Formats: sequence, C-alpha cells, structure tokens
Amino acid sequence: MGEFELIRQYFQPLASNASNDQLVLGPGDDCAIQRVPPGRDLVFSVDTLVEGVHFPPHYAPSHLGWRALAVAVSDLAAMGAEPVCFTLALSLPEADSDWLAGFAEGLSRASQAFGITLAGGDTTRGPLTITIQVHGTVKAGQALLRSGAREGDRVCVTGPMGNAGAALDYLEDPEPGALKRALLASYHGPQPQLKLGASLAGKASAAIDISDGLLADLQHILEASGVGAELDVASIPMSDELRQLQGVRALDLALTAGDDYQLCLTIAPETLAALPAPVREQLTVIGRIVPEPGLTLTGAPAGYQTQGYDHFGRSD
Amino acid sequence: MGEFELIRQYFQPLASNASNDQLVLGPGDDCAIQRVPPGRDLVFSVDTLVEGVHFPPHYAPSHLGWRALAVAVSDLAAMGAEPVCFTLALSLPEADSDWLAGFAEGLSRASQAFGITLAGGDTTRGPLTITIQVHGTVKAGQALLRSGAREGDRVCVTGPMGNAGAALDYLEDPEPGALKRALLASYHGPQPQLKLGASLAGKASAAIDISDGLLADLQHILEASGVGAELDVASIPMSDELRQLQGVRALDLALTAGDDYQLCLTIAPETLAALPAPVREQLTVIGRIVPEPGLTLTGAPAGYQTQGYDHFGRSD
Repeated sequence: MGEFELIRQYFQPLASNASNDQLVLGPGDDCAIQRVPPGRDLVFSVDTLVEGVHFPPHYAPSHLGWRALAVAVSDLAAMGAEPVCFTLALSLPEADSDWLAGFAEGLSRASQAFGITLAGGDTTRGPLTITIQVHGTVKAGQALLRSGAREGDRVCVTGPMGNAGAALDYLEDPEPGALKRALLASYHGPQPQLKLGASLAGKASAAIDISDGLLADLQHILEASGVGAELDVASIPMSDELRQLQGVRALDLALTAGDDYQLCLTIAPETLAALPAPVREQLTVIGRIVPEPGLTLTGAPAGYQTQGYDHFGRSD
Repeated sequence: MGEFELIRQYFQPLASNASNDQLVLGPGDDCAIQRVPPGRDLVFSVDTLVEGVHFPPHYAPSHLGWRALAVAVSDLAAMGAEPVCFTLALSLPEADSDWLAGFAEGLSRASQAFGITLAGGDTTRGPLTITIQVHGTVKAGQALLRSGAREGDRVCVTGPMGNAGAALDYLEDPEPGALKRALLASYHGPQPQLKLGASLAGKASAAIDISDGLLADLQHILEASGVGAELDVASIPMSDELRQLQGVRALDLALTAGDDYQLCLTIAPETLAALPAPVREQLTVIGRIVPEPGLTLTGAPAGYQTQGYDHFGRSD
C-alpha cells in the first residue's frame, strides 16, 4: 500500500495540469466527477498498451508516457472532440522510481500539450500494461462518425503517412542520422490532430484516426458507410525523409503502416471548398467516395503491389 | 485481427443489454458518445483486476465476469450515482472460447442486474488483466464524497461484513457445505448497494464502498473529512454463517476483510431519523463521528485485538 501511495504521488501533479472547470472532482474519492456543459456530448475511448505487443520491451518511459496519452487522445481528434480529462490504469511489476519519474514526465508533457487533466486511476501490481481512457466533449450531434461517407465525398488525410512505420526499423539504431531521427520523432512523439479534428466537427462526413494503416482504417469508414473509394496513390503525402530512406518501399509504408495518428476524413466537395483556407490547406485530397463497395488504387507505379494489406479488394 | 474480431462478438450483445437513452453511440467507432441529462453530473471510476493478484489463477470465468463489473459498479453506489454504461479493456493470453463464453455470460448477467450497458472497449493480447471503467450520473452537486463527515454523524453500514473475506479460505474446497456455500456466494457474486446508495445521495454526509475492509475504508473517510470515529464493535452486523464457521475470528474478518462491497456511510442523526423506513431499516448504526482524529473501538470482547489492520490508531 505504501509503495502504491508513493506511485500515486508521481501522478498527483497531473491532476492539476490543465485548467478545466468541467472536472468537478479529480483523483482521490471513489469516483471522479465531470460536469458536461449543456448542449455538448461526452465522447470517450479506452486504449490499452501492453509491453512487447504495442511498444518494445525496455522502451524509454518518457516516450511511452507521451505515446500512451497521444494514442488515446487521437481518438478524440477523430471524433472532432475537445479533450477534457483522462483516467490511467497502470499495472507495474515493481515500483521503479527512475521508470516512474520518466513515465510521469512524458505523460505530463503530453497532458499539458493536449490540454487534458488526470481525473483518476488505478495502480496494480502486474505485467507492464497501460490503459488510458480519454474524455472529451463535442457540440451535441456534431461528432464525426465512421458511417457518414457519401458518394462524391473527397477522401482527405491530415499529414504525411508512413513515417512512424518506417521508424520501427530504427528503434535499435545507436546513432541514427538526421533523416532517421526525423522519422523516429514521428514514432516517439505522435501529434494527435486535435485542433484540425475539432474544426471539422459537423463538417466532415466521416473520420477515423490512422492507427492501423491508411488502407485498413479507410476500409473501416467504407464498411460503416456502405460505400467504396478510389484512391490516387500519387497524391498520398509522404515526407522527404521517408522517400529518401525507403525508396520504393515508401509508398507501401504510407498505405499500410500504422502509428502515425493522422486523420483520414471524407468531406463533401462543396463543404471542402467553403472551409477557411488555414483549415483547408492542412488537408490533402487523396481520392473520392464511390457507390460500389471496395477500394481501388490508381496512379500506382507500374508493377506496384501493396505487401501488407490483407483485405485489399476483398469487398469485390 | 480475425481472432480479436471474434472476441468482440462475445461482447457485442452486452452493448444492448440495458435500455439507455443516454448512450448515443456504443461500441464500434473511434469513441462512444454519452449525453448526460441537464442538471446531472457524470460520475466515473476505473478498476483493474490482475490474475493472481485480485483473483485466483484459473478462477471461474463466469464468476470473474460478474465480480469485475460488480467491483467497479460498487464505486458508483458509493457516490450515490445511477449506472449508465461501462468500457472493458481486456488483455488475454489467448482467445479461449470456453473462457470467453463464461466470462461474457457472467459480465452480461451483471450488466443486466445493474442496468449498465457496454459502451466500448479494447481487446489486446497479454497477461490476463481486466480494466473496467463505469459511468453513472447523479443530480448535480449531490454526489456522496468521502470528505463530508462531521462531528455527531452516525457511522452506518449497509449489510453484514466479513463474509467474502472468510470465503477466501474455502475457494479450493471441493465440496463446501451449506454454511460455506453461503459465504462463497458473497465472494463470487457481490451485490453493489446501488439502490440504497442512490436513495442516500444528497442525504448521507460521506460514503465509501468497503473493498479493503471496514476499518481501512472508514479511515479514508476520517482522513478526507479531518475527523475521528468511535465504533461499537458489538453492533457490527455479521452473518450467522460467519459466526458459526469462524468463531472468535469472525469479528476480525468483519473489521478488516475486504471484498464484501457493502457501503460505509456517515449521516447526521436528524437526517437518519427522517429517512423513509424502508431505507433506514437497511442501515446499521455502528458508531459516531468525533472531532478528534483517530478510530476508537468499544464493545470488543475482553482481550480482543485486531490482527489485520496496520493503520490502527496511527492518527493518535
């Protein structure tokens, strides 16, 4: 008990990290209390990260703290919601103070960056497992769902694809050069598209965050919406670093690698045209929604075949 | 992916278990959506159960499903809140269909009994770990906190103590008799005091659910409220089965064993007297709040000393 009281002290400062008048009662009672403003919906999502499955063994605790919260918060971005608070359920094999200090530091940086406050949690002894539930709010009825894509909508993404996936190759590199470091930053410090997501609430017709790879996640939108899509792969945004380091493999990573936490959205062309320029300029149109189920790629280099996407064409 | 899609199918029916118009969007999108009615606060709590720590290895999955949700829902009872929905983050070493069917059955029975609907979740491969977050609502400002106990308030409990703690001795008994079976039922199928808790919202001055033992959990109220208490241990309710099976050890179990998930409440005497009889009759007064910090026991048998309570008298 003393040990776990100690652990909680590492996280106590996070309970006042973001000023937030929605959080009526934070950690320390049987429950926390959130007062959702009238006219807004509560939006929430839970994500678990297991050592050796979702992050490498002995992964730097500071990176892990940031990543764990960023991955969870990205689901709020995909709904167009604004972050409010989160809970942390942490299983630890032992109370290692260096590890705890690093993890709390990364988590704290992320919570300040995303404007989300620790509301409660549970600490238990067990194999290293991190479960975070994030709470946000969105104007009632304006959350971005997966099911709203309609024929003629444009398919858009919010930034370059494939960087974090490529970085998996470099995690053990003792002296990565500048190019590799740029990609590693995408893996260690994903930036959920919170502002962009919130600015598209009630405007985009569907959205998802890209955690499993562009093709796999877009397929979730298509299935939920009962439509298909044509993608122009030549228009898919990729970083210079990815192209230089990965050559012909870059496109495959951009289509199929996860961990980037950009958003994939669909939006009617007239709505897209009417967006304020600063918002519209952050979107790259990569295709359009068609009525027939299935996903068709055009513009691929001759002989190109994706390697990592099992579901390819399965709706045909 | 196919395997985990299969797992989700076991839990899909739980998403429509309780009719609930607050749950605007259930599992299957990036987030779930809850619409909290005007004038009510959202109340939430997360609990993790790890195999070998919080339940025995190879514990019957049906019992585990019930217990996991009951333990979490009990925190809503302690706030005086009414259950709405919950999320399930489940780590499993493998997708064993017998285990999954049993766990889902117990979880489903509990969700129907408590009127709480599955809103979302995450399933990962890893050591068996169950994290459940429960959501409830309470009239704004009427949640029962730990911090409101005042001098003169009566200390009450909602039912017999020590049954589940005693049952830990009998979990491996191949043929338990009727007395032991009665106590085992308390361990396998705890009944969170939801109705009683909700009927005391805005009336009791403080509340906690007894998960770690009466003395330890009452101490949380005393510390949060900055007061002390005198308990008359002769008035602590114990079952006949506990007295018969445990003899002189019964009182110690009633004071220090967890897992019963009754509530401990404090309430002003005039408020207690004004409660409707059907509510008041479910409460047993076991002591009163005093201004001096610390916990004093009176009425104990000659020579009695509690065995399992480290913090005993530490505030003196």
